[in-house]
Amino acid sequence: MSLQYLLYEEEEKIGFISLNRPEKRNALSRALLEELTALLLKIGQEKKVKVVVLKGIGKIFSAGHDLKEIADGSPQDVLEIFQTCFLTMRAIREIPQPIIAQVHGIATAAGCQLVAAADLAVAAEDAQFATPGVKIGLFCTTPAVFLSRNIGRKKAMEMLLTGEFMSAQDALIYGLVNKVVPSSELEAATKELASKIARYSLSAIGVGKKAFYQQINMEDFQALNYATEVVSLNTTTADAQEGIMAFLEKREPRWSDN
Amino acid sequence: MSLQYLLYEEEEKIGFISLNRPEKRNALSRALLEELTALLLKIGQEKKVKVVVLKGIGKIFSAGHDLKEIADGSPQDVLEIFQTCFLTMRAIREIPQPIIAQVHGIATAAGCQLVAAADLAVAAEDAQFATPGVKIGLFCTTPAVFLSRNIGRKKAMEMLLTGEFMSAQDALIYGLVNKVVPSSELEAATKELASKIARYSLSAIGVGKKAFYQQINMEDFQALNYATEVVSLNTTTADAQEGIMAFLEKREPRWSDN
Amino acid sequence: MSLQYLLYEEEEKIGFISLNRPEKRNALSRALLEELTALLLKIGQEKKVKVVVLKGIGKIFSAGHDLKEIADGSPQDVLEIFQTCFLTMRAIREIPQPIIAQVHGIATAAGCQLVAAADLAVAAEDAQFATPGVKIGLFCTTPAVFLSRNIGRKKAMEMLLTGEFMSAQDALIYGLVNKVVPSSELEAATKELASKIARYSLSAIGVGKKAFYQQINMEDFQALNYATEVVSLNTTTADAQEGIMAFLEKREPRWSDN
Repeated sequence: MSLQYLLYEEEEKIGFISLNRPEKRNALSRALLEELTALLLKIGQEKKVKVVVLKGIGKIFSAGHDLKEIADGSPQDVLEIFQTCFLTMRAIREIPQPIIAQVHGIATAAGCQLVAAADLAVAAEDAQFATPGVKIGLFCTTPAVFLSRNIGRKKAMEMLLTGEFMSAQDALIYGLVNKVVPSSELEAATKELASKIARYSLSAIGVGKKAFYQQINMEDFQALNYATEVVSLNTTTADAQEGIMAFLEKREPRWSDN
Repeated sequence: MSLQYLLYEEEEKIGFISLNRPEKRNALSRALLEELTALLLKIGQEKKVKVVVLKGIGKIFSAGHDLKEIADGSPQDVLEIFQTCFLTMRAIREIPQPIIAQVHGIATAAGCQLVAAADLAVAAEDAQFATPGVKIGLFCTTPAVFLSRNIGRKKAMEMLLTGEFMSAQDALIYGLVNKVVPSSELEAATKELASKIARYSLSAIGVGKKAFYQQINMEDFQALNYATEVVSLNTTTADAQEGIMAFLEKREPRWSDN
Repeated sequence: MSLQYLLYEEEEKIGFISLNRPEKRNALSRALLEELTALLLKIGQEKKVKVVVLKGIGKIFSAGHDLKEIADGSPQDVLEIFQTCFLTMRAIREIPQPIIAQVHGIATAAGCQLVAAADLAVAAEDAQFATPGVKIGLFCTTPAVFLSRNIGRKKAMEMLLTGEFMSAQDALIYGLVNKVVPSSELEAATKELASKIARYSLSAIGVGKKAFYQQINMEDFQALNYATEVVSLNTTTADAQEGIMAFLEKREPRWSDN
């Protein structure tokens, strides 16, 4: 797959995707989003890696949509741009591999949405997050969806209504990111987190990721009933059988997908 | 509009509502709630301000419902009192302007509910929050609704089951308020937050506030699909067109509603 | 009721349940879960206590399901084990008394699920929480249900995908537990919390607990409408009438169930 706006490499069962439009502050143009969706779906289908790191080349993670593209488009074009972004978020959710956002510099608007939509996130201590659409009369309604499902309502509304930055430290406390580290350690810390997941069975990871998001939108005991079916079926997989046996025999498990 | 239980003034696109029954600890009597609902709906319709601050005159923010009124009422009267309160909460949600609760002293029971139902909240560092209904055999079920949607389940249950106070600092950490400041700075800090929002287009703020609460109760991708439609339509408004243009031309936007 | 895997005592309106399989790290075998469900339902029916503390005998709170039992079972047996666990969670939710998890040592997998499903939790400062199923190819999908409803998505996913421990301090910040105390004070602190609740009317507590979880899965204003009906009806109970009267007369209330 030839890439124009992204870089991609695989190493030790980890896929590393880099947004590669540093001269445009990694703006999420329609073409970039289409490439990202296609790449994610390919990774999901190939199953060569067990976890994906998403980062940005240059000074920042991403400044969000390409405003020029939105300014120049007809209403129908604009709708199609946002629908393209919808499909990227859908791909993040639907592939079996967890996505870890590795954030440096700033992540704003749809860039912040990428972080919120990711399964996990690691941030440099000077990283900053914002949903500044309100400043230009275009409320960050789409970033609000996952932002409000990561941090509380009050903090989400504050970001959305003021357009101001949230610090990495606050992002950690309120639940937008999992870990905050010095800039110099960002790459290593993210890779360390990815490596932990890459040791496990993709079959179990994939079952778990899918079930997690399915159940989270259900009433409590509908969710628990569903999870009960999922975990029971999970037990019958080759990797769970091997994992349980290895545990009882006090040895390392050998996964079918290693 | 002649006000009996409230004070109201407008200044620099900010509306300031004060609960004005200090001798009754700003108890939310049926008459006060009716006046508050009517005032909010008027503010929403007139669109003369872009954001509303809600505060209390006297030593505390509000001690909640007027217990004497509940004690004296028939079951049907009591239901009507709570339904009156429901309509106030509905007005807070439905007007386009964000509501900022400015909290000093204590906010208990339906007073705490007002803070939780507000879009944003600023608290003095000695402010305290409680849902003490359980102490009088009348569980704070209505305050529980927005409280449990602001702070986590465990903390909400702790407040509801013990009736004890949560400090301003914990309210900040758990998401009930946005900011905690020294008492002497409460008014200025709240006004500063309101002023930030008052700079923006009410058309964008109103679209965003409505969409935020609509999407938050939807399944993730239903929410994102809905938000995609909203933001696309938002782009076609005069203020968004002006905002995007001003951004690309590196100048300040001029909103249609200023 | 003769108990084989649990201990149970009642003291000052508080019920104390202890998981009593210390030699098996309080593994939640099918037989233990059945006994726990039966005991909870009995407590709920008898109404002799107003609150229940759930703790573990020995070095840890609980290590979760009995893996040996899962390894030895047919798929249908395994489904029945998880369905047995479902019924225990359902009993925790359905009895009128709040359940406080008192956690020392570790609480992993379904042990962590017990903590998350409890209404309140107090932890020793060296307590640790984990959902390590992914390590054996059996993703902790059932623990994920209440875990993700206690702590944010990002932290829940981190625990589920890495299988690593969360400290008591982080459990406090992210909302899995209500209080963290030195080990030596765990029993006293939990009892103190239970005692506060045990002073109140079980009729009010039961109404509140039920309504809290009913409303939390509803759209905001459906929830508020429902809560409005509940609180209005609550007002007509003998204990609420007494509580309100006692408050207005500045005296201690006398509950019908004391």
